[in-house]
Amino acid sequence: MTNPTPGLPGHTAQDTEIDESQRLISSSKVEGTAVYSPESEKIGNVHNFMVDKITGKVSYAVMSFGGFLGIGERYHPLPWDSLKYDTGVGGYVVSISRAQLEGAPTYARDEDPWTDPDYGRRIHGHYGFPYGL
Amino acid sequence: MTNPTPGLPGHTAQDTEIDESQRLISSSKVEGTAVYSPESEKIGNVHNFMVDKITGKVSYAVMSFGGFLGIGERYHPLPWDSLKYDTGVGGYVVSISRAQLEGAPTYARDEDPWTDPDYGRRIHGHYGFPYGL
Repeated sequence: MTNPTPGLPGHTAQDTEIDESQRLISSSKVEGTAVYSPESEKIGNVHNFMVDKITGKVSYAVMSFGGFLGIGERYHPLPWDSLKYDTGVGGYVVSISRAQLEGAPTYARDEDPWTDPDYGRRIHGHYGFPYGL
Repeated sequence: MTNPTPGLPGHTAQDTEIDESQRLISSSKVEGTAVYSPESEKIGNVHNFMVDKITGKVSYAVMSFGGFLGIGERYHPLPWDSLKYDTGVGGYVVSISRAQLEGAPTYARDEDPWTDPDYGRRIHGHYGFPYGL
């Protein structure tokens, strides 16, 4: 009973001693968790995330930023592999630069770019992450 | 623009023609989706799901069942691999028998069994699914 809230505060993938209570995080905890730049500046929150139905892997975290009470908010998909949970800041740290974040693909509340089969490829391409489903 | 709600109604892993808009499903769509027995009887809804932070894979869907407005509800973790999305019923069909579902590990709203590092192993064991993180 050392970790009453599994995952948060959690441990990072770098931990050498791993037990499952540290490894698993609830979807409801991922949603809402803060996202920080490598410089520990808060840049948004995880709004939702996209799961590959075939592999069962989380492919993208969708970060929300800007706006007020959801109005004017924009959604910013990030390759899941670009995020690491950091207990020090109590959120995810994204391993991509501010320059890459600016000008990255984003969408508005009433848009659904995921219907475009090439959308994921473009996100990966923008960040220079290898794309492979 | 053939699938305005990505994932729902979605396609199953068996589809031969796969594009990413069919493969990705939003975490917020998974939560709340109905779960059916192999006999197409509704047995609950996905309450949340557990993600392995290291592999990025969804390990368990937690089905809620029983209760009224959350009171008396119980949570029933199912290995993610035991679920298949079925467009015919508009929900997940779980490939485990009613006998296995009865007597399976469950927990109440105020319990958090995930703090137990052996909990996942017990769930897999109960259903006879190979356990490997």
